[in-house]
Amino acid sequence: MGDGRLSPPERAVTARVARLATVDASGSPHLVPIVFAIREDRIVTPIDHKPKRSMRLRRLDNVAAEPRVAVLFDSYDEDWSRLWWVRADGMATVLAFGGPGHAAAAELLADRYEQYRDHPITGPIIEIAVTRWASWAGA
Amino acid sequence: MGDGRLSPPERAVTARVARLATVDASGSPHLVPIVFAIREDRIVTPIDHKPKRSMRLRRLDNVAAEPRVAVLFDSYDEDWSRLWWVRADGMATVLAFGGPGHAAAAELLADRYEQYRDHPITGPIIEIAVTRWASWAGA
Repeated sequence: MGDGRLSPPERAVTARVARLATVDASGSPHLVPIVFAIREDRIVTPIDHKPKRSMRLRRLDNVAAEPRVAVLFDSYDEDWSRLWWVRADGMATVLAFGGPGHAAAAELLADRYEQYRDHPITGPIIEIAVTRWASWAGA
Repeated sequence: MGDGRLSPPERAVTARVARLATVDASGSPHLVPIVFAIREDRIVTPIDHKPKRSMRLRRLDNVAAEPRVAVLFDSYDEDWSRLWWVRADGMATVLAFGGPGHAAAAELLADRYEQYRDHPITGPIIEIAVTRWASWAGA
């Protein structure tokens, strides 16, 4: 693969979608697809464009009860020698709209997703401080 | 969307890759991409084609300590009205090679992935008994 020398965050950011795993208060895993931006060892992902208030709250509740989360970036190909994934383990905090860090995170997201240029993010943003990057790529 | 009437498992099976969330003994989430097959309310996924023995063991250790897992199937599109996801929450067990259920699960996987026709699955297979299907699709 020509991009074998990318660092884990450099490779991760080539994906347009990732998946966020949280753990609820009962210890059960929860999993959602996310859009995201990365700057250095921080991943930001908005809580919005989701259909149900209950779903948004569940993710925020989970992060409040257990800040340890995992984010997976990967690419599938029928040629399995081209598979790769990057996993970020980290600690999540919630940036409230109007509070510290929200505007900068929203700008990072709008840089990557034009959908946010017409409809700015007015909901909370989860910020993940990555404590460990793990990665793998096919032969 | 033309396939809006698919049931959650019918939609899930249109994906070629999914993501499996487990929880380790310390309560931290873990996340890997998986290939999979579905029959009724059972999802099967092999533990193999992974680079490191430690990675395989971690997933098996997690499932042994906490059988509750989540599997996410989704599709990304720059047109966000075409997004969809399906989540399966369930209880995982491990099918040992040569033990009950392994051959049938391996056959389901070989039906979907030609890679397994040349290289049959000789490692363990995780079987997830789905207790809840959740799904969402864009407007």
